[in-house]
Amino acid sequence: MSVTTKATIASFGGKLLKLSHAATSTKCEMSFNLYLPPQAFQNPAQKIPVLLYLSGLTCTADNCSEKGFFQHGASKKGIAVLYPDTSPRGLNIEGENDSWDFGTGAGFYVDATKAPYNNGYNMYTYVTEELPAVVFKAFPQLDASRVSITGHSMGGHGALTLYLRNPGKYKSVSAFAPISNPINCPWGQKALAGYFGEELRETKWKEHDATELVKKWKGPLDVLIDVGTGDNFYKQGQLLPENFEKAAKEAGVEGVKVRYQPDYDHSYYTMATFSDDHVEHAAKQGIGDCVVLMDLF
Amino acid sequence: MSVTTKATIASFGGKLLKLSHAATSTKCEMSFNLYLPPQAFQNPAQKIPVLLYLSGLTCTADNCSEKGFFQHGASKKGIAVLYPDTSPRGLNIEGENDSWDFGTGAGFYVDATKAPYNNGYNMYTYVTEELPAVVFKAFPQLDASRVSITGHSMGGHGALTLYLRNPGKYKSVSAFAPISNPINCPWGQKALAGYFGEELRETKWKEHDATELVKKWKGPLDVLIDVGTGDNFYKQGQLLPENFEKAAKEAGVEGVKVRYQPDYDHSYYTMATFSDDHVEHAAKQGIGDCVVLMDLF
Repeated sequence: MSVTTKATIASFGGKLLKLSHAATSTKCEMSFNLYLPPQAFQNPAQKIPVLLYLSGLTCTADNCSEKGFFQHGASKKGIAVLYPDTSPRGLNIEGENDSWDFGTGAGFYVDATKAPYNNGYNMYTYVTEELPAVVFKAFPQLDASRVSITGHSMGGHGALTLYLRNPGKYKSVSAFAPISNPINCPWGQKALAGYFGEELRETKWKEHDATELVKKWKGPLDVLIDVGTGDNFYKQGQLLPENFEKAAKEAGVEGVKVRYQPDYDHSYYTMATFSDDHVEHAAKQGIGDCVVLMDLF
Repeated sequence: MSVTTKATIASFGGKLLKLSHAATSTKCEMSFNLYLPPQAFQNPAQKIPVLLYLSGLTCTADNCSEKGFFQHGASKKGIAVLYPDTSPRGLNIEGENDSWDFGTGAGFYVDATKAPYNNGYNMYTYVTEELPAVVFKAFPQLDASRVSITGHSMGGHGALTLYLRNPGKYKSVSAFAPISNPINCPWGQKALAGYFGEELRETKWKEHDATELVKKWKGPLDVLIDVGTGDNFYKQGQLLPENFEKAAKEAGVEGVKVRYQPDYDHSYYTMATFSDDHVEHAAKQGIGDCVVLMDLF
């Protein structure tokens, strides 16, 4: 359970920590980043809420840490940002490095049931259980009772499905360009077939599909989704946010807000532009904030 | 003089353009980026001021565009940001790719006089003359009379020296972790010896050294410099901002403000944290702004 600190980087008055730990669920050393806002260093009695950010295909914890600018909003709101990796690494499973959209860097936030990936590709358990346990033990100033979730692309799928599968676990949810209906898009079909097998199409696949899950949601749902109309993956039908919106509407679930941002693409430029809004959404709709009097920078 | 558009990327309500053109001063195709803030698309009669950002060793125009967060502040102030490349590329000069701190990616914003680099390594002329001519012709909405300058590391050296060598050309100057006294640090000595030769140590070298130039400055100087105390290159004596401060003080030049930022390093995390301040400095001390009523995002 011990955490290794690989780097400590000053950022927006707080610290971005590059960390790693030996994970049992994924059977390898897992890297992750944690941004501690300035408020985490000011009043030890004040607990800091956490925004969990799930990354997209091919990414590590570093991409969004460098280019997403969540630290900007998080530093103002007094929110920590937890950036997990996107898959186990170095398990030496045959074929895991053959595709950029499956295997390494593409864990899809599920627990694989199909061999050989069931031997370590357990990103669902890792992100929902093991990583939080490690982080909240190592950083007692963080508030385990106030965690919100967001993510990009594959990580948007992760954010929506983890939220919908675990009512009450996360205080709010938002997403950028999420893979919203993976059972009906090429990326999702490839991943779900590879991690679960074709034979579980009606069961496991649907249990990790936001559009299927929202049909069973009870009560309102306050979710913010940003999708760029210039996003090539949106145009190619990999994201299908319309299906998610339609399913929610037909199920009578209110509060799904999809903003189609004119011309924005699938890149971190889009996230940088709107990350303040998603931090604000997490603060307002979920975890609150931790703004104390300060003038650090 | 024609400009090729390689990409148009939505960013903070405006557009980041990835461009290139055939440059005569550097004898090759030069890539550069230009951020047009939202105001550039609103009122054609309103001219947009420009902040010229000079990058550091090894960088292209893309690094700061992705990680520096200047678009955040520039979009609010209605300022365009021009990101040139750091050297000619592909000239096939023997040895130009042998070092990361000399040759390709390391033009040092001088016009080389020594063979073989005098055959194209003319980043001073490129940045002060050719590129602005191309840009202001291709983008008539930009205001050629309102240009400020900033930069990072080698680009901080560029910003300070171009400003000090050309009184009145740039409306304000700032820098992140600038190489402030290149004639007295390893990076600068290697570059100046390579581009000018040892025999010009007392002449050309000093003409491109901010600490030497400030000694001859007349009148006040409103310059903002941020240096991180956790910056390893600062600790190694590559930056020497103290020498610049001391020279200014001894010459009676007022208005040199160096902020030593606790724990911050040499990375773009530092720039992202303070870029808003440098955009604000450019707007307040130099080029003004172009804020019109808008609510684009």
